[in-house]
Amino acid sequence: MTTTATTLKGQPLDRQTLDAMLRRRLFFTPAFEIYGGVAGLFDYGPPGCALQANIVETWRKHFILEEDMLEIDTTVLTPHEVLKTSGHVDKFADWMCKDPKNGDILRADHFVEDVLEARLKGDKEARGQKVEEEDDPKKKKKRKTKAEAVKLEDAVVQEYEEILAKIDNYNGEELGELIKKYDLRNPNTGLQPSPPVAFNLMFQTAIGPSSNLPGYLRPETAQGQFLNFAKLLDFNMQQMPFASASIGKSYRNEISPRAGLLRVREFLMAEIEHFVDPEGGKKHVRFPEVNTVELTLLDRHTQLAGKTEVKKMTIGDAVSNKVVDNETLGYFLARIHLFLQKIGVDMTKVRFRQHMENEMAHYAADCWDAELLTSSGWIECVGCADRSAYDLSVHAKKTGAPLVVRERLDEPLIFEEWQVEIDKKKFGPQFKKDGKTVEAALEGTTQEQREKLAKQLTDNGELELEVAGVGSGTVKVSKDLVKIEFRKRVENTREFTPNVIEPSFGIGRILYSLIEHLYWNRATEDGAGDEARGVLSFPPTVAPTKVLIVPLSANKQFQPFVSKISQKLRKYGISARVDSSSATIGKRYSRNDELGTPLGITIDFQTVQDSTITLRDRDSTKQVRADEDTIIAAIQSLVTGAKEWKDVAAELPTFESQEVDVTVR
Amino acid sequence: MTTTATTLKGQPLDRQTLDAMLRRRLFFTPAFEIYGGVAGLFDYGPPGCALQANIVETWRKHFILEEDMLEIDTTVLTPHEVLKTSGHVDKFADWMCKDPKNGDILRADHFVEDVLEARLKGDKEARGQKVEEEDDPKKKKKRKTKAEAVKLEDAVVQEYEEILAKIDNYNGEELGELIKKYDLRNPNTGLQPSPPVAFNLMFQTAIGPSSNLPGYLRPETAQGQFLNFAKLLDFNMQQMPFASASIGKSYRNEISPRAGLLRVREFLMAEIEHFVDPEGGKKHVRFPEVNTVELTLLDRHTQLAGKTEVKKMTIGDAVSNKVVDNETLGYFLARIHLFLQKIGVDMTKVRFRQHMENEMAHYAADCWDAELLTSSGWIECVGCADRSAYDLSVHAKKTGAPLVVRERLDEPLIFEEWQVEIDKKKFGPQFKKDGKTVEAALEGTTQEQREKLAKQLTDNGELELEVAGVGSGTVKVSKDLVKIEFRKRVENTREFTPNVIEPSFGIGRILYSLIEHLYWNRATEDGAGDEARGVLSFPPTVAPTKVLIVPLSANKQFQPFVSKISQKLRKYGISARVDSSSATIGKRYSRNDELGTPLGITIDFQTVQDSTITLRDRDSTKQVRADEDTIIAAIQSLVTGAKEWKDVAAELPTFESQEVDVTVR
Repeated sequence: MTTTATTLKGQPLDRQTLDAMLRRRLFFTPAFEIYGGVAGLFDYGPPGCALQANIVETWRKHFILEEDMLEIDTTVLTPHEVLKTSGHVDKFADWMCKDPKNGDILRADHFVEDVLEARLKGDKEARGQKVEEEDDPKKKKKRKTKAEAVKLEDAVVQEYEEILAKIDNYNGEELGELIKKYDLRNPNTGLQPSPPVAFNLMFQTAIGPSSNLPGYLRPETAQGQFLNFAKLLDFNMQQMPFASASIGKSYRNEISPRAGLLRVREFLMAEIEHFVDPEGGKKHVRFPEVNTVELTLLDRHTQLAGKTEVKKMTIGDAVSNKVVDNETLGYFLARIHLFLQKIGVDMTKVRFRQHMENEMAHYAADCWDAELLTSSGWIECVGCADRSAYDLSVHAKKTGAPLVVRERLDEPLIFEEWQVEIDKKKFGPQFKKDGKTVEAALEGTTQEQREKLAKQLTDNGELELEVAGVGSGTVKVSKDLVKIEFRKRVENTREFTPNVIEPSFGIGRILYSLIEHLYWNRATEDGAGDEARGVLSFPPTVAPTKVLIVPLSANKQFQPFVSKISQKLRKYGISARVDSSSATIGKRYSRNDELGTPLGITIDFQTVQDSTITLRDRDSTKQVRADEDTIIAAIQSLVTGAKEWKDVAAELPTFESQEVDVTVR
Repeated sequence: MTTTATTLKGQPLDRQTLDAMLRRRLFFTPAFEIYGGVAGLFDYGPPGCALQANIVETWRKHFILEEDMLEIDTTVLTPHEVLKTSGHVDKFADWMCKDPKNGDILRADHFVEDVLEARLKGDKEARGQKVEEEDDPKKKKKRKTKAEAVKLEDAVVQEYEEILAKIDNYNGEELGELIKKYDLRNPNTGLQPSPPVAFNLMFQTAIGPSSNLPGYLRPETAQGQFLNFAKLLDFNMQQMPFASASIGKSYRNEISPRAGLLRVREFLMAEIEHFVDPEGGKKHVRFPEVNTVELTLLDRHTQLAGKTEVKKMTIGDAVSNKVVDNETLGYFLARIHLFLQKIGVDMTKVRFRQHMENEMAHYAADCWDAELLTSSGWIECVGCADRSAYDLSVHAKKTGAPLVVRERLDEPLIFEEWQVEIDKKKFGPQFKKDGKTVEAALEGTTQEQREKLAKQLTDNGELELEVAGVGSGTVKVSKDLVKIEFRKRVENTREFTPNVIEPSFGIGRILYSLIEHLYWNRATEDGAGDEARGVLSFPPTVAPTKVLIVPLSANKQFQPFVSKISQKLRKYGISARVDSSSATIGKRYSRNDELGTPLGITIDFQTVQDSTITLRDRDSTKQVRADEDTIIAAIQSLVTGAKEWKDVAAELPTFESQEVDVTVR
């Protein structure tokens, strides 16, 4: 397992060079930059936008189409009451400290992390150990606190390391205690910040002209799916299990956005809510299909011990050993693994990390994050939680809507029991304001109590019941007001609230991590010099543009071929770009290596003679030559993923160009 | 030209039946319904969501792919300063009145419209004329004011009608005058509402933890594109003209959302910004391709005369007659027409309405809306404006960013002129606080003045200049502080701010109008009774689900065929649904007619014998029969739009089923 950020070819990743390239090629750019920018907001330029669309499209096919999920599109604007019920108004917060002098606002966990890491680094320096930043890429992020070479006690070093291993596990009070205990100070002022307070991460607004309906921008797409559960079940003709899915923007007002696309305030999510019967162990009918998929797991016990060693295990074993809670959750972990593989993620840089108890919501049964290794450390890109019946239950309770499944029982269930029957018309006049209280007390009796009370009614024509707060604490109810009888009750249907397994994807984080995984530098690779010759080796299926069309020169004879080929590719829905600029062929190919364009067509004098064209593979720079239709058919099979370059290279004649080093010509 | 809302087959459209069907099939649904709902917010269920995705995908191919537009994805959150500069903070408002007694909030133009229409209706009743609501579908919306049978003067009727024809043309003050002049009263209280005040339609929020950065949810996707102009021009290798495009959500806090999807607070937009050189008449190189496309036009002169008669005209004629301002604008009007046609809009229910002078922003050169006729009247679904250089200019001025194009001139321009050269180092000490003022006065001199001043310098060694507000109003500047000489200046580049043509699509409005246009009722058509048998005749290219697969019965022999066919269709990315329910074949087809599924495959006992399957056309209910691969190839050609049903029906053998009336079996 790789532990440092590297390029696709295993060289150390030079983040600055990559960033400059992404900026130059307009993958993404700070939003409102000409106005000075706004932290945590980014725009996607044409290649980023196309890459995002292709990842989403692959996602849609891999999940929604493959499993007939019900895709819905719900609103971002959400009224207060919904998010109050879901718990977000009260609990969707980060811990924030304020500097008492200059008002600096610090995210408490980041602040603790930052200072402790600086001290550990200083300790290493003092001990004369080599400070290898790349040791743990988590430490590579921009640190505010400068390391000072001060040696620490061995025991303190161990304490710090244990704290850092479970930094996500502390609440605000605990973070406050750490700040005091270790005297952590804001590097800008040298002062301890204030104790952490909760800062709600939702953007607030008002809906309607009279400002009396407060609302928020949704922090996740899940709630809209839960609220439509009954309608979706109906649409699915009452069939269980089923899944809904949503792709859309969500919003979190981060205290300190950082690391480019990795912590932003507006982001695209793709979320699945798979509704499953909680009884019968949450089996999944397609689990056998993924049984042998091997995952890299970091379970909660390992983390609680302050360790980060991963285990490789098939999902079949993980579920049967109870490392992963149930089959449905396991099925989706494997499907997430396969999805990441499909879009080109470097699978040696993926781990599934289980949430620790304190990290999870109290109702969650289990939760795993797919984390991808980047130059900013291990980044949570996909969450996969078993949310149990929590959400449906709270919304049902709040609104009275029946967010349940009713299942016809093959054999009806028969109960024999003491039943209470109250004559409500007479009850009110008799007990006046206490009526409801007495009623509730009667309804709340146990089977044993009822048996006794029934006997009182038969024997005395009235019963005596203790009802706290009414009269003397004991009330008498006569037999004309209440009946208690032993009866049979038959249930033909079973009613249950489904549990929810929720795979939740941060598309922007996946997109950025994928870029890092697929980036490499041709110059470093072939030792041809120090010039920057970046390549993004996107698989043809997700690459922003599929084909670059380059006429050899500005010669007018080439133009008709360029037009004809562009038109044909367009007809097949294959995105292509023509570069007729005066730059050398090599320069033009380099530009498109940086854009991650996997294929290149050259039109040269031979084309004019015999209508053949060459097709170039970005990664190997190898070329084949054939007639137009053959080449276009090859392109089609490559961009749909039906074939790989090696298949095409084996089928079509190689074209040996003179361009040993294309960038020099 | 149709003027009333009808079904696809020309029958009167029964809005209630259609609404019930759309609700039943979960095309869309009020958001947060179990919480009582929020006006103007809707969720799209599975068929609505798929229909939306297919419309967007068609749009992307028709516009972005066809013309190599640069698609970008910019943020919804927008800081105050950007929208202050664009004019939205000050001007993006509707006029709102308040009832002095009960606090009712009324949108002023809707209120005036509502009361005047009620009076006109009352007049008709009083005159004993037939009140045909369908006369003008604009009047079919829910009216708050009840019509009372009161006869009006003929002149008054004419006044009212003229007001209604140009209701979009009034500002707040004018609407207030109409309310007073005609004594318009809120039907709920019988009182005149307060004078209209501007209500800004943007949703406001605060970005960041310290609440000191006010922001809004964008009301359009345009601004993000303008702000990225310089980067996009660079990405496009400085080539002009070019277009950017964005597909994303926008937000408007409507005072009174109404008419379902037609006036909502959160909506999907697709917007193009085509940047063009303002010189040379805004020609478009592909205009000849659309020259002969015939459009239905309602120009501004007709409307100002209080009329609504349309003219049919080719876009070629419209541009050469100056009905439409320029070729580029005309090109996009024609392309919009072709797009609407492609997705299946009934082109007899489309008109292009030109904005009146007061409707347009002051900077706009021309603006046309594509309006679609629905049961709520003519609905603006696409706007197409020439925004001139306004947006780029104001953002450039505010930020200093060079949002311009620099074009190398073939022949440099040479100017000979008097130039002023100031020695700023000496200027400050000499004039102190007045330095800048004197400098500005010198820079501001005309060529004639400079010639005279140069002579003064030569003759007297100093010049005398009137500078208001400095000393006595006249200052002397000696020749060691300033030079004025006659020199040559050469310009090799031309710099200009591009103009912007902006086609802007409201996807939700298009989607809803399309549904109305393609809806009809099979029962009404074939006279087979009064049962509701709704059909949505979506073209296969945009239909939410392409194929319904129905096994004849629950017989287990059919199952392998169902699985195999589903899998094959999935492989080709064709969305299909299996209905193995116990309902009759006819009922199952009816359900899918309502969902607009164009094709149906039946698996029956013959399939088990010879592996042939039948393919049914939704609209004609005709069927063909062939082997699996032939049928799947036919489906592929239908869903890509390469063939129509009549082609397939001509090629494959007809299957004469017994199902004369499938719903009865």
